[in-house]
Amino acid sequence: MKVLVVGANGQIGKHLVTFIQESDSLNAKAMIRKEEQASFFKELGAETSVVDLEQDIDTIAKAAEGVDAVVFTAGSGPHTGKDKTIMIDLDGAVKTIEAAKKAGVKRFVMISSFDTRRQAILDASESFAPYVAAKHYADEWLKGTDLDYTIIHPGRLTNAEGTGAVTVAEEVEIDEVPREDIARVIVASLENDATVGKEFQVITGANPTSVKEAVQSI
Amino acid sequence: MKVLVVGANGQIGKHLVTFIQESDSLNAKAMIRKEEQASFFKELGAETSVVDLEQDIDTIAKAAEGVDAVVFTAGSGPHTGKDKTIMIDLDGAVKTIEAAKKAGVKRFVMISSFDTRRQAILDASESFAPYVAAKHYADEWLKGTDLDYTIIHPGRLTNAEGTGAVTVAEEVEIDEVPREDIARVIVASLENDATVGKEFQVITGANPTSVKEAVQSI
Repeated sequence: MKVLVVGANGQIGKHLVTFIQESDSLNAKAMIRKEEQASFFKELGAETSVVDLEQDIDTIAKAAEGVDAVVFTAGSGPHTGKDKTIMIDLDGAVKTIEAAKKAGVKRFVMISSFDTRRQAILDASESFAPYVAAKHYADEWLKGTDLDYTIIHPGRLTNAEGTGAVTVAEEVEIDEVPREDIARVIVASLENDATVGKEFQVITGANPTSVKEAVQSI
Repeated sequence: MKVLVVGANGQIGKHLVTFIQESDSLNAKAMIRKEEQASFFKELGAETSVVDLEQDIDTIAKAAEGVDAVVFTAGSGPHTGKDKTIMIDLDGAVKTIEAAKKAGVKRFVMISSFDTRRQAILDASESFAPYVAAKHYADEWLKGTDLDYTIIHPGRLTNAEGTGAVTVAEEVEIDEVPREDIARVIVASLENDATVGKEFQVITGANPTSVKEAVQSI
């Protein structure tokens, strides 16, 4: 199974391509913005494709040709300029979804924000709300397609080393989770078709179970 | 016919409420953000409702109860902070659409941007693109509903006095148009059910015809 990782050069993305290349059943194609980001992925034996998410759907669709799944883990992050929030977190995501459809790729895994429901936009701080809104509309767009989607809602992301154990449920109390463990959850989701059409929150939590078991419980 | 004007205190909005109050068949309810904006509308004999577009759908729906049409002419404008672009131009619009549905109001007139097609996002300057994207997704959301919508795409808006004559078509070459004339086009659209399910661009143009005729040609 070949997986196009959109946002491969991000912090989750680098862990993800690493795990994909370590797995027996998966192979990564890293979509990156600049050629000079390629060496990391080439050393892992992954294919690369240089595409800027501000380009058009056709260009992204070319990168998606021949793959079996697309993972969207690009993000302007909550603290970049708000213009990038709408151009990357919303429009970049929607263009990637449309590109997957165009390239005939059915499987789509979206890395979302912890809570993207309408109430979360209202509850968010003034500076965070635009990011939540962008992710809300991207998730809504994906759910409106007939793609085989999984939407992963991570808790507060940290750069701590992953433990390989998480808590996963439709709704959990917010807590931290290492980016490395989110990358593991993505791999487990790609390897488990029972996650199709599902969305779930992920934290480490007080009584975490192995990523594979946790994802199976969904 | 009672019309809720969302963004009544804006430059188009003030002209619009004025024209509505002058018309025999229409009556305005001005939705404004602050009580101190009410006097202008009260002097015109229009009802007012104080609602902030960053509030929830239920609150907006209460303002829409009992009206026959909703006009969305609120806007952060292309030059406000980009956080407001997503919160008002996109999320505020979508919440107003959902509020109209909730209140059982079928008729909805959206004041959009000149060109909100996907290509226009790619062609826009870096500073203007987020605004075009926000308007694109708001228009797409509206077209996905079963509301009786009309989407008006004005050319470069000016504060010049209106002439009462415009050029209207699905696609025209961009040119200026006074806000006052856009307000007239909104009234003519509300009075002409043939505009339901349609969207069109409006400029003054070289050979303009009267607003009523121009809208009838759609």
